[in-house]
Amino acid sequence: MMNVDDGLPLTTSDKQNRTWRRLVKKRLPILEWAPQYDRLTAVADLVAGVTLGLTLVPQSIAYASLANLPVQYGLYSSFIGTMLYVILGTVKEVSIGPTSLMALFTLQICRELPIEFVVLLTFLSGCIVFVMGLLRLGFLVDLISPSVTSGFTSATAIIIVAGQVKGLIGLSFVAESVADNVYFVVSKWRDIRLADCALGAVCCTVLLLLRKLKDVQVSPKQTKLKKALWLVSISRNAIVVLAASVFAFYTHNPQKPMFKLSGLVEPGLPPLSLPPFSASLHNSTLRLQDMVLHLGSGVLMLPIVMVLANIAIAKAFSVGEKLDITQEMMTLGLCNIAGSFVHAMPTCGAFTRSAVSHSSGVRTPAAGLYSGIITLLALVFLTQYFYFIPKACLSSVLICAVIFMIDIETVLRLWRRDRMELSVLALTFVTSIALNVELAVLAGILASLALLVRRLMRPALHAAAVKTGSGEVCVVRVTQGAVYLSAELVGRRLLWAAARSAPRALLVDCTRLTLLDYTAQQVFERVIKKIKNDNQKILFYNVPVELMSQMENIEGVIKQSFRATSVQEALAVIEEKAVEANESTALMATEPGSRDNV
Amino acid sequence: MMNVDDGLPLTTSDKQNRTWRRLVKKRLPILEWAPQYDRLTAVADLVAGVTLGLTLVPQSIAYASLANLPVQYGLYSSFIGTMLYVILGTVKEVSIGPTSLMALFTLQICRELPIEFVVLLTFLSGCIVFVMGLLRLGFLVDLISPSVTSGFTSATAIIIVAGQVKGLIGLSFVAESVADNVYFVVSKWRDIRLADCALGAVCCTVLLLLRKLKDVQVSPKQTKLKKALWLVSISRNAIVVLAASVFAFYTHNPQKPMFKLSGLVEPGLPPLSLPPFSASLHNSTLRLQDMVLHLGSGVLMLPIVMVLANIAIAKAFSVGEKLDITQEMMTLGLCNIAGSFVHAMPTCGAFTRSAVSHSSGVRTPAAGLYSGIITLLALVFLTQYFYFIPKACLSSVLICAVIFMIDIETVLRLWRRDRMELSVLALTFVTSIALNVELAVLAGILASLALLVRRLMRPALHAAAVKTGSGEVCVVRVTQGAVYLSAELVGRRLLWAAARSAPRALLVDCTRLTLLDYTAQQVFERVIKKIKNDNQKILFYNVPVELMSQMENIEGVIKQSFRATSVQEALAVIEEKAVEANESTALMATEPGSRDNV
Repeated sequence: MMNVDDGLPLTTSDKQNRTWRRLVKKRLPILEWAPQYDRLTAVADLVAGVTLGLTLVPQSIAYASLANLPVQYGLYSSFIGTMLYVILGTVKEVSIGPTSLMALFTLQICRELPIEFVVLLTFLSGCIVFVMGLLRLGFLVDLISPSVTSGFTSATAIIIVAGQVKGLIGLSFVAESVADNVYFVVSKWRDIRLADCALGAVCCTVLLLLRKLKDVQVSPKQTKLKKALWLVSISRNAIVVLAASVFAFYTHNPQKPMFKLSGLVEPGLPPLSLPPFSASLHNSTLRLQDMVLHLGSGVLMLPIVMVLANIAIAKAFSVGEKLDITQEMMTLGLCNIAGSFVHAMPTCGAFTRSAVSHSSGVRTPAAGLYSGIITLLALVFLTQYFYFIPKACLSSVLICAVIFMIDIETVLRLWRRDRMELSVLALTFVTSIALNVELAVLAGILASLALLVRRLMRPALHAAAVKTGSGEVCVVRVTQGAVYLSAELVGRRLLWAAARSAPRALLVDCTRLTLLDYTAQQVFERVIKKIKNDNQKILFYNVPVELMSQMENIEGVIKQSFRATSVQEALAVIEEKAVEANESTALMATEPGSRDNV
Repeated sequence: MMNVDDGLPLTTSDKQNRTWRRLVKKRLPILEWAPQYDRLTAVADLVAGVTLGLTLVPQSIAYASLANLPVQYGLYSSFIGTMLYVILGTVKEVSIGPTSLMALFTLQICRELPIEFVVLLTFLSGCIVFVMGLLRLGFLVDLISPSVTSGFTSATAIIIVAGQVKGLIGLSFVAESVADNVYFVVSKWRDIRLADCALGAVCCTVLLLLRKLKDVQVSPKQTKLKKALWLVSISRNAIVVLAASVFAFYTHNPQKPMFKLSGLVEPGLPPLSLPPFSASLHNSTLRLQDMVLHLGSGVLMLPIVMVLANIAIAKAFSVGEKLDITQEMMTLGLCNIAGSFVHAMPTCGAFTRSAVSHSSGVRTPAAGLYSGIITLLALVFLTQYFYFIPKACLSSVLICAVIFMIDIETVLRLWRRDRMELSVLALTFVTSIALNVELAVLAGILASLALLVRRLMRPALHAAAVKTGSGEVCVVRVTQGAVYLSAELVGRRLLWAAARSAPRALLVDCTRLTLLDYTAQQVFERVIKKIKNDNQKILFYNVPVELMSQMENIEGVIKQSFRATSVQEALAVIEEKAVEANESTALMATEPGSRDNV
């Protein structure tokens, strides 16, 4: 038997060389894909990147104002992350920048604090996330089961749709939850603007039609037409935004604008400076430690939410592919540390942007370069043009990107296969919608664990009477782990079986025993003692190699039978032991009493 | 195979009759032990009960003042519970009454609220605990592993010792934590009273010597002497308290008392009345719902802590015996509900009292009757005598009872066998001492779960090349559950093995596969698809009966090999399938594409 992880034999220098090269490639994923970068991929990335950029700019503005910051701070937060991710990122759809979740958290943590605190929060969060990556805490993500991811994904899609409906129909209000959004839309129905509604409807229709375009059946000969259709289909977001903006520009009436527009963005690059390690508040100067105290527990909570959100998104978009969590965490940390040098607010991957990238046909993380450049250009030159992007059009792009993320397929499959697992999904979904996303992920994790614990608490135990040459014996097969959750139950059932078994011996088949912790060892000791007091014997056989040492720890156990592979072989052990029996039972008989004092 | 839980065949009326009788015995445990109640047991219980009563009275007074209530409320809380437990209780050492934990919680929840709120809190907590029992939520206690119980036990013993040192040396101060106690003792060293110290030292020495008395070697003929020694030994607490009180009474000098005494207790039975469903606060009358709002989340938290503490104690004292958690919870609930009719504060089992009962040689729950009567007598007649119990003497009794609960044996054994498990114990212990007991139990539960999750995340996988008639094949044995925690890893390793295996087939031995959840099914589907795309085959054999249906759920799996018990049998399946192979691979080849859209 060889361990699966062992590689081929290599010389030491070979090995070191390979290890180094592998490590560099692992930490700079760009080296992995850049050599194979070709024109077609570049076109796809360009289209996706530009589309993403056109989504990113107004989104950044919106999230900055959601966090109660001047709008340009949103743009400051959106180019470093996206561009750094090109070099360090592993999931092509992820784009690091402001998100609604981060904006809401920032608002809560830095309420009534000056802007220096926000930038410091970005820096500290980045450091914490980076250290979490260094410590390889990424395995924690395996705690998020696919049902939780599915519930989280569907819920987030619905939350985003609910948040974008107002843009689609020309309303403006600040609302955080789905319920708030519904309430405001209903209560403000008189203010619904028909022009925006019409534009939104047109945009959505066009987007959905263009999405179908790539599936149109073309005769196999017309490869050029096929390619053109595909290009139009994946660049649909950019096309629609451009068309709508041009239309808005030419029909613009400053006195009575036809549509709600994205509005003015202050131009200019952010100043490059160290993160602020002191700040003045209420006429007194605060040092770093005072600032941290002002930020409170948020400094610890935000990074965790950041990692959770980012990795949940990365997991959702890398279905079936391997995800290097450690790399993702270190990248996310570095993006935020770098961001804090250009006055960024806390950033992470955004579900919306990933959906836009995905639906625009992104091929590599290089797309981030283009969207980063667009943000920079926006800051320097383009602010006057972004002014004309109609809000209804942007909402359409966001909505048409995320509605396909509502994961009904998993729900249907779970309904057929595993309703308990479906309840985990439902819990995550409902908690996300009704309360908030972090709490939902936590609840989902706990519910998944609860399901597993429930299974472990109920190990299968089969008892059978087996006829041998010298009479009947009871054979019990213990399945699954005997761990503290189930040890008492297993012990009780072994005693039950012993009471009903032939006077000679109870045989325990350990073929399917996979875990044996300290508690179970203690319980087995007790069972052995009890059975010996009743002048019976208990034999464990078919003991797996992995559990041999744990089984040998158990006091009073008959070790000779461990390697027996059948009832006959196991029974042969007591036949052989019969000669020494008097001696050994005498030895055992003194034991139970000596422990009564415990 | 028969299921272990199946009983012998019985007629229906027989069965009903038996079920009924068993249920009544289960719910009224007194019926179990009362018929065998003999004189010797009665004497032991009487001694233990009286000793317990002598501990209970001053303890109740202390805890009432800790909860900021008039002292008699402590005594009101200590007779109903102890007496009801005689009929309904299952663990002979448990005595329901005021505890330091409950007192501290009550203080926190009812701070600055009138006494009606405390009584209502008792009533509501009782109801909640009773319902938890009815819903059979007792299985939750299996989440508390023995390491957690051990850590909790040792820590509580040390906390109690730390809290009693002040009584032993004649100091008075209010301190909650071990650190506070140490700090106050050190900072108030000038106030240490020598007389109390001397009395404490004498009491402790006498108690420890008397404890050893029962182990004195006596010639086997002198059974009467043996019995007398045992009686003196187990009644040591009562003897010492009585002797010290008599001494204090005769040397009493009202102007300058030699020792700190227990002091005055207000006499009289509590009035019997319904729990208060309304109260007046700040000149306004509050209805039930307003009162509940004032109590806040404490109404939910207190019952959980109550159950946790009570069951942790019950578990610690019923080591090796079966514990009926449901019965314990319902009893605890009823004791509190009944208590609320006589103005009791929230009660549960106390570690100290259980230790005293245990060290006094209690035999059945009947001991509670005597201690309950003592409390009643104390309220009615004896208050003037209890006045003279020296505090140093009571502290000695408490300390000498609990120091033997410090569980060093488990620590040593875990050090040799399982250091990870020891870290769970250490975490529980340190958290108990440094923060608080509920948090410690919670941390311990989570740490135990984390250990289990860690084990489940790293399933053993063994790969081996097996030579068959027609070449070599790779056989992989998957051990443990393939659950969401480990599914990705298992999938990755299967693909790894497939890439290195002979071109024909990868064989997966499922003998030791014990769990297979939805996530693992999905991962197996992906693996199968990938392997089929590479024109290889994957065969699962030795599939256990319990997992058959889950395995059949997996799309694209070759079901014919499931029941094969050897490599040869499994390979025979593909030989037979070779004829239909072309057809089936063609069918599979269309599948992967159709899912790309997800």
